Amino acid sequence: MSPEATDEDVAHVVERVESVGGEAFVSKGVVRTIIGLVGDIESFHGLNLRTLKGVADVHRISDPYKLVSRQHHPERSTVWVGGRDGAPRVPIGPETFTFMAGPCAVETPEQTLESARMAQSAGATILRGGAYKPRTSPYAFQGLGVKGLEILADVRAATGMPVVTEIVDARDVDVVAEHADMLQVGTRNMANFGLLQAVGDAGKPVLLKRGMTATIEEWLMAAEYIAQRGNLDVVLCERGIRTFEPSTRNTLDISAVPVVQATSHLPVIVDPSHAAGRKDLIVPLSRAAIAVGADGIIVDVHPDPETALCDGPQALLGTELRELAQACRKLPALVDRVPSHERATTA
Amino acid sequence: MSPEATDEDVAHVVERVESVGGEAFVSKGVVRTIIGLVGDIESFHGLNLRTLKGVADVHRISDPYKLVSRQHHPERSTVWVGGRDGAPRVPIGPETFTFMAGPCAVETPEQTLESARMAQSAGATILRGGAYKPRTSPYAFQGLGVKGLEILADVRAATGMPVVTEIVDARDVDVVAEHADMLQVGTRNMANFGLLQAVGDAGKPVLLKRGMTATIEEWLMAAEYIAQRGNLDVVLCERGIRTFEPSTRNTLDISAVPVVQATSHLPVIVDPSHAAGRKDLIVPLSRAAIAVGADGIIVDVHPDPETALCDGPQALLGTELRELAQACRKLPALVDRVPSHERATTA
Amino acid sequence: MSPEATDEDVAHVVERVESVGGEAFVSKGVVRTIIGLVGDIESFHGLNLRTLKGVADVHRISDPYKLVSRQHHPERSTVWVGGRDGAPRVPIGPETFTFMAGPCAVETPEQTLESARMAQSAGATILRGGAYKPRTSPYAFQGLGVKGLEILADVRAATGMPVVTEIVDARDVDVVAEHADMLQVGTRNMANFGLLQAVGDAGKPVLLKRGMTATIEEWLMAAEYIAQRGNLDVVLCERGIRTFEPSTRNTLDISAVPVVQATSHLPVIVDPSHAAGRKDLIVPLSRAAIAVGADGIIVDVHPDPETALCDGPQALLGTELRELAQACRKLPALVDRVPSHERATTA
Amino acid sequence: MSPEATDEDVAHVVERVESVGGEAFVSKGVVRTIIGLVGDIESFHGLNLRTLKGVADVHRISDPYKLVSRQHHPERSTVWVGGRDGAPRVPIGPETFTFMAGPCAVETPEQTLESARMAQSAGATILRGGAYKPRTSPYAFQGLGVKGLEILADVRAATGMPVVTEIVDARDVDVVAEHADMLQVGTRNMANFGLLQAVGDAGKPVLLKRGMTATIEEWLMAAEYIAQRGNLDVVLCERGIRTFEPSTRNTLDISAVPVVQATSHLPVIVDPSHAAGRKDLIVPLSRAAIAVGADGIIVDVHPDPETALCDGPQALLGTELRELAQACRKLPALVDRVPSHERATTA
Repeated sequence: MSPEATDEDVAHVVERVESVGGEAFVSKGVVRTIIGLVGDIESFHGLNLRTLKGVADVHRISDPYKLVSRQHHPERSTVWVGGRDGAPRVPIGPETFTFMAGPCAVETPEQTLESARMAQSAGATILRGGAYKPRTSPYAFQGLGVKGLEILADVRAATGMPVVTEIVDARDVDVVAEHADMLQVGTRNMANFGLLQAVGDAGKPVLLKRGMTATIEEWLMAAEYIAQRGNLDVVLCERGIRTFEPSTRNTLDISAVPVVQATSHLPVIVDPSHAAGRKDLIVPLSRAAIAVGADGIIVDVHPDPETALCDGPQALLGTELRELAQACRKLPALVDRVPSHERATTA
Repeated sequence: MSPEATDEDVAHVVERVESVGGEAFVSKGVVRTIIGLVGDIESFHGLNLRTLKGVADVHRISDPYKLVSRQHHPERSTVWVGGRDGAPRVPIGPETFTFMAGPCAVETPEQTLESARMAQSAGATILRGGAYKPRTSPYAFQGLGVKGLEILADVRAATGMPVVTEIVDARDVDVVAEHADMLQVGTRNMANFGLLQAVGDAGKPVLLKRGMTATIEEWLMAAEYIAQRGNLDVVLCERGIRTFEPSTRNTLDISAVPVVQATSHLPVIVDPSHAAGRKDLIVPLSRAAIAVGADGIIVDVHPDPETALCDGPQALLGTELRELAQACRKLPALVDRVPSHERATTA
Repeated sequence: MSPEATDEDVAHVVERVESVGGEAFVSKGVVRTIIGLVGDIESFHGLNLRTLKGVADVHRISDPYKLVSRQHHPERSTVWVGGRDGAPRVPIGPETFTFMAGPCAVETPEQTLESARMAQSAGATILRGGAYKPRTSPYAFQGLGVKGLEILADVRAATGMPVVTEIVDARDVDVVAEHADMLQVGTRNMANFGLLQAVGDAGKPVLLKRGMTATIEEWLMAAEYIAQRGNLDVVLCERGIRTFEPSTRNTLDISAVPVVQATSHLPVIVDPSHAAGRKDLIVPLSRAAIAVGADGIIVDVHPDPETALCDGPQALLGTELRELAQACRKLPALVDRVPSHERATTA
Repeated sequence: MSPEATDEDVAHVVERVESVGGEAFVSKGVVRTIIGLVGDIESFHGLNLRTLKGVADVHRISDPYKLVSRQHHPERSTVWVGGRDGAPRVPIGPETFTFMAGPCAVETPEQTLESARMAQSAGATILRGGAYKPRTSPYAFQGLGVKGLEILADVRAATGMPVVTEIVDARDVDVVAEHADMLQVGTRNMANFGLLQAVGDAGKPVLLKRGMTATIEEWLMAAEYIAQRGNLDVVLCERGIRTFEPSTRNTLDISAVPVVQATSHLPVIVDPSHAAGRKDLIVPLSRAAIAVGADGIIVDVHPDPETALCDGPQALLGTELRELAQACRKLPALVDRVPSHERATTA
């Protein structure tokens, strides 16, 4: 309460809190009175406490999310991806390290297959590839759509790699779910609540990227939207946040990994490619991601970055991909994890 | 080019640029060579210049948007809203100042009508009100949906105020366009490109809020998505950006108004309510918006903020609304504008 | 307290709080216990509450500053500048609007005098000008030093304008205080606590710019450092904060003006030149500053921006300066203020 | 140049550039002309190119710093610290991993010695400890000053650990240099150019923390200030930047390590304690720092965090310190580094 608040103001707040079934504990000081609320936070939302006379500020103490919180679910979860068309089921969780890779965009069957083979040789167990591309410019390549999904399904059959692909429109949920093993919600759609609900209903694991300016709490609330539809197979993906620093496309918030793991039971992986936007940083950032304890990474590879239709400057190949492969083999053991292929199960 | 770039590297870049019909001018210095490109920027996108050997950095010099740029359309535009059910057509543009107001969310017919009457008495000519509410928490009030749209249409008929309302899902475009006079794309959906294209096709004026962490360039690119569908009736709305400052919900980027007006021909208005999130700042920020040259403002009002289902703490009434009304009457003349009702035309 | 906290944990916190003379009110809920502290906040600092077992989070409810707060000093203050060498005493406070202008850097006696005359013709009552320039590059012009201070003193004698100039090193306090009427602490030194204490001891009014990434609370704490030395003649200056938006040098946080005025009794002015870094935005941003209720503005002018040694791109002259002069004459009345020269007093 | 620029405008720019000995290459397109400048960038500063008629924008292509750049000094440097009072000389550079630890503030001889012993047992080779503390609040503990420096010197004699300590005022350079082995410039003083020059003159290695909202370029420019005084023994320290994310005190910009290493020859270390402000994140962030390739880390330890006078919540002891010690032993080998003690030399 503000220093000017009267006893009536305090009494009015207490009355409102009790009217919705909560308890209010009044701590009265010389200058200022503090009221501690205990009860169902949802019921407090409707009170508009900040509008009440004499109220100076309102601090929420408990977490606003429930289903994705560790509070009622202390064990960290494992999400299984795959098990179709002969592809294994691959775990993403606290005991493993899962390496996902593939081209930013699906361009042709050949480029996709070649990218998948590169990824697989480097140790990747899940194939990423975009059929629907959300692009800042309406004049940029927007993806192959259904044709791209079919290519991904063919490449899965050829390689045995389960497929994760982005969905940008709630109207496409059925067709994407039909072809892919995991649905990705991209950074620009993290707060597209209709899309979150639609993927929550689709019955497939979801890869939920952090909005490029979302707080960790907002990101977990987005996961709660999916969970609320009965789908707890959500994997979070840190991909950099927007700051004032111009030397990288975004600033990889590496601390988000242990913060999320302390707060939520959901797995969390790192996308160093989109965070940095620069090929020369992918290997060191991937090593950092493994060492900080991420449950996996997702990386862009392309057989010919110079001709890539999307994000060529960050796609790996050659020496850098070999270095990355080596890091993914050697470092997980140091944080008590095994590479995901050692725990993958045949369908 | 980087200092280590060879003559072959330079020649390769020149060759690639020329292969897509562009021109490349080489400026060779003692330490470093600069190549200036001239031609169609879209054709350069496919070159992945950053991936070419010897390239240190790429700077775009020209604007990436075309239809919304002032470059080919130097006159600033006026967008007209309304003309249905007896409501007038209200201009938003360089000669007028347009005051929009209404409740954050449509709750009941009574609350909506009362809010509209309050807004109208204060001088507002366009009614805002949300039927679909994008909420961070899945447990918060999500809006009345179609029922809310019907209430808004009834209130329009009763008051003669054209209606602007938010659309959050491309699947709702038809029903929203049927009831409303102007479609609002909210801050969380600024980069929901499918939604932008859908509203671009709807044939109604659009109010496009800036993403809470979008650069002005990205915001204009979002407008370009709508324009590219043949709809140039887009009004931009600055509503605060995310920064490290915690005393306001967002930081109102007041400079965005003259920056947009220097770059784009589209009208631009200011939403001080959502920027500040605090009632006590609405009047001073509205005065600042008028004085900086905004083409309008959009403000939350509510007859009983204490019981509002959404954003009660920022809704105006009583003294503050009277102060705002006075500012909207007196200040526009000082920046050579007339209140929009003086130029509104009957349908 | 975290949900796992035991009764002993709670008791230990209470005991620690009481051990320093505070009171602790325990609010016990089903899931979680909240402890409200009442007492002297300084004594709580030493408790390291966050390190105590079972403590999940600590929120401070009261303001950390005292001398600059409105809490114990509800009337907004007026700071008087000048009164030397025949120059008048000029007020900066809630009833007036004070226009300060001058060259970014003092270069020559002629350029400084000409800039001062331009500023004065436009209505400015206080002359700004830098003799010590904090520059990002060690290779850039660093200012004329004492020679520059002497030029400023001469120009004050010639024009009757009191002088504000920046101080960048505590060792220069005496010589700057000897020549200038007001000492400016620049954005890069807002948290240079030794310098703050030194200017606090100097017995001259201080112009304290906001750090380019300081929160408003940190800025007021910096003012508290000065006030604690017995100097309450502090004027705050909002000059833009660092965000991700690249079209302006910094983002002018116009909301900071009413936020500061609600929290502190100190006057607050706006520097649109350094916020924008672009000449074309100075006039609209100055109008916004007046309309939002700022107690003044401070603007760069230069007779020949093309040859300016510092920040030429933002210096006004000609048409723009005339437009600014007009805004400074007409707008203050609309927010119930008079131009500062109407209240200035002869020495 | 802007699309409206005339041939005379272009000619004027070329003439100005040539007048200071530069070359200007004109690339003329259908819509827009680009002028590439080649020559000494310092001489271009005085031209105020942005103020010239017809100039739309100016992009600098080359780096603004010279002495700290890898461009003319491709080999990464090693800085040696210590060699006094029987303490060894410890390297910080590309072949080693240097672990620095100690109390945030020097409080008593016993607490400092105990902290140093803890740090040393965990493998630290350099002792950190603050005698001068820059505090946001003038009411907080400001450090023991000279008495603290004497304690640090005594603890160095007792343990053989070279000492790094912060300097906050140019007037203290002599006394700090007399006692310490390495001078730390803290985040709040990164742009205190007088202090940078003073430590540049002191003839001791410098630990330069990144300003909490400095770009990497500005940080390297601050290092250039020191280098320009003839002191190239500068170690950079990433300690988190200010963003909108509230769950950590600052956001550790882990990418800054490889970005700096690609641009500058100076060593760069990481301070996870001040970045996170939370004890539970120190170990994972330290692992990430080693894995990303940092040349060292600097960490807060304290024998009794509950009574620490400064930053208790982030100080390590017990299990966490043992985990950190283990990471510092095992991980460096994976990035081809040896612990610094293996390369330290006796004085």
